[in-house]
Amino acid sequence: MVNTHLAPRHMACLGGGHGLYQTLLAAQEMNAKQISAIVTVADDGGSSGRLRREMDIIPPGDLRMALAALSQSSDETGLSASVLQHRFGGTGGLAGHAVGNLLIAGLAEATGSMQAALDKVGELSQAQGRVIPVVNEPLEIEAEVSGLDEDPMVMRTVRGQVAVATTPGNVNRVKIAPALPPANSLALEALAQADLITLGPGSWFTSVIPHLVIPDVVAAISKANALRVVVLNLSAEPGETQGFSSERHIHMLYQHAPGLEVDYIVVDNYLRFSAGERSHLCRAAEVLGAEVKFADVSKRKEDGTTLGVHDPAKLGQVLTSLYDRQD
Amino acid sequence: MVNTHLAPRHMACLGGGHGLYQTLLAAQEMNAKQISAIVTVADDGGSSGRLRREMDIIPPGDLRMALAALSQSSDETGLSASVLQHRFGGTGGLAGHAVGNLLIAGLAEATGSMQAALDKVGELSQAQGRVIPVVNEPLEIEAEVSGLDEDPMVMRTVRGQVAVATTPGNVNRVKIAPALPPANSLALEALAQADLITLGPGSWFTSVIPHLVIPDVVAAISKANALRVVVLNLSAEPGETQGFSSERHIHMLYQHAPGLEVDYIVVDNYLRFSAGERSHLCRAAEVLGAEVKFADVSKRKEDGTTLGVHDPAKLGQVLTSLYDRQD
Repeated sequence: MVNTHLAPRHMACLGGGHGLYQTLLAAQEMNAKQISAIVTVADDGGSSGRLRREMDIIPPGDLRMALAALSQSSDETGLSASVLQHRFGGTGGLAGHAVGNLLIAGLAEATGSMQAALDKVGELSQAQGRVIPVVNEPLEIEAEVSGLDEDPMVMRTVRGQVAVATTPGNVNRVKIAPALPPANSLALEALAQADLITLGPGSWFTSVIPHLVIPDVVAAISKANALRVVVLNLSAEPGETQGFSSERHIHMLYQHAPGLEVDYIVVDNYLRFSAGERSHLCRAAEVLGAEVKFADVSKRKEDGTTLGVHDPAKLGQVLTSLYDRQD
Repeated sequence: MVNTHLAPRHMACLGGGHGLYQTLLAAQEMNAKQISAIVTVADDGGSSGRLRREMDIIPPGDLRMALAALSQSSDETGLSASVLQHRFGGTGGLAGHAVGNLLIAGLAEATGSMQAALDKVGELSQAQGRVIPVVNEPLEIEAEVSGLDEDPMVMRTVRGQVAVATTPGNVNRVKIAPALPPANSLALEALAQADLITLGPGSWFTSVIPHLVIPDVVAAISKANALRVVVLNLSAEPGETQGFSSERHIHMLYQHAPGLEVDYIVVDNYLRFSAGERSHLCRAAEVLGAEVKFADVSKRKEDGTTLGVHDPAKLGQVLTSLYDRQD
């Protein structure tokens, strides 16, 4: 189906973690001619967090995962996605480190350039696109969180990606430190050249919103000569967005980036919104200048229940249909 | 010069560490059509030792160094020798690890095969030959050492590659544990197919002799249908072979491998042996069935003094001349 449609010339996908992984698979399903993955740099957990603290580098985990997504179709030659993703076992100093993270960190140190390291791993793994950190330095996420005290009005600051992603409280606002970092010029170039830009899905406060607190990035999306599509998460995630409605997900976008303009918001229809809910969602989207596209985009079990993850083929078809429609 | 001569069809180089590195450069200078590096597996120091203990794998350091030697001529594409050799800085858990060691260890764990890992790194770094561990399990070196006590006749057992390489005593005999391990069948195949086999140079007790306490390997060298050349070290190394004459280096070979047969022993003439010393060396060589070839094979400074390392071009020329002579 997808192949009979026009493929995007250059697709720029903003995000991080597992959400971006699925979008990058979708981009490949769409046969996008050029793919740029623009990736968050605020992780502080696990292998990434250890490398970040030890070597003072951009945490490589989200970058590695994007490279692995772009290398899914690689054959026997080169470095496979499964090797990049492999985590050292055992109980020693390497336990838990992803092989790809160590390779990226080692190359970054050996070459003196994180971008050179990412491009080299991309070459070795025959990646079908380029991975670009959104900012050229590691960032720290800070969130204003309520509901952590007896008094639900008390607001506390929670620091660090892991802490924010797992807080039992309600995240009201996300900041990054250092504040207002200059965006990576390669990311801005990709956004300027793209004809299709996606944002999300992903951990809303730690993979999606962090892109929108960088003013250069918001400006680049808003003035881009591209179809701009937000892909909403399938369902509230346990932890950071638990109890968070799809409508509030959209509200959060313009609360953090008042000037943001997008064209479409893709909402999975597995959630079966009522007519009232749909009209609320559409009104929320209007503030961003966006239309809501309800579509079946979740991976399903044989019995039809969702697997809680976007289906790259279905997402690719929806994005292609939106891309086609604009012409 | 070298190119006007016949190039070896298949050159099998036994050794480890920096000595093997130079021989593998020489093999490439000779335009050997196929190169097999057969590598010791007894290292227990540094990055290799840590990985060996942590992951119970063949120590990757000597293997990585052989891969780096075989990747010297690789161009900008692929994984460069300098990246394989790069050591992590800092003061954290990765400090001191060579990038190539971690990549080999990670691939070995991810694929379940050390040979698959070595072949994959060889592919990624466009190595001009194959790296083969001499035995498919990590070995431990044990040495009988005298001169550690007041009484010079007291013999003590020193265990481990680092301890043996740095003992201030006199090493009399080297063993490996487990004793009599089966050789890697790929190593035996390479020795059977080779038309030129080299042993050494290198740390005599920890990179050269360990090959000769594996009976399969000695038998394979002795019955090989190849020109077999021992390349003697340039000079006594500080530590393990300090005060050790070239003649004793040769004695040590047949002391450890009484059935060993080789064709030539290459001795650097920078040492300027007296006529008496030369005839002693020749007599020692005869026991192995070998002829001594005195030649200028050391890398020199502009003022003519040796840099203490074999010159790959000079060594390649000598090996080519010996190889030519047999036809």
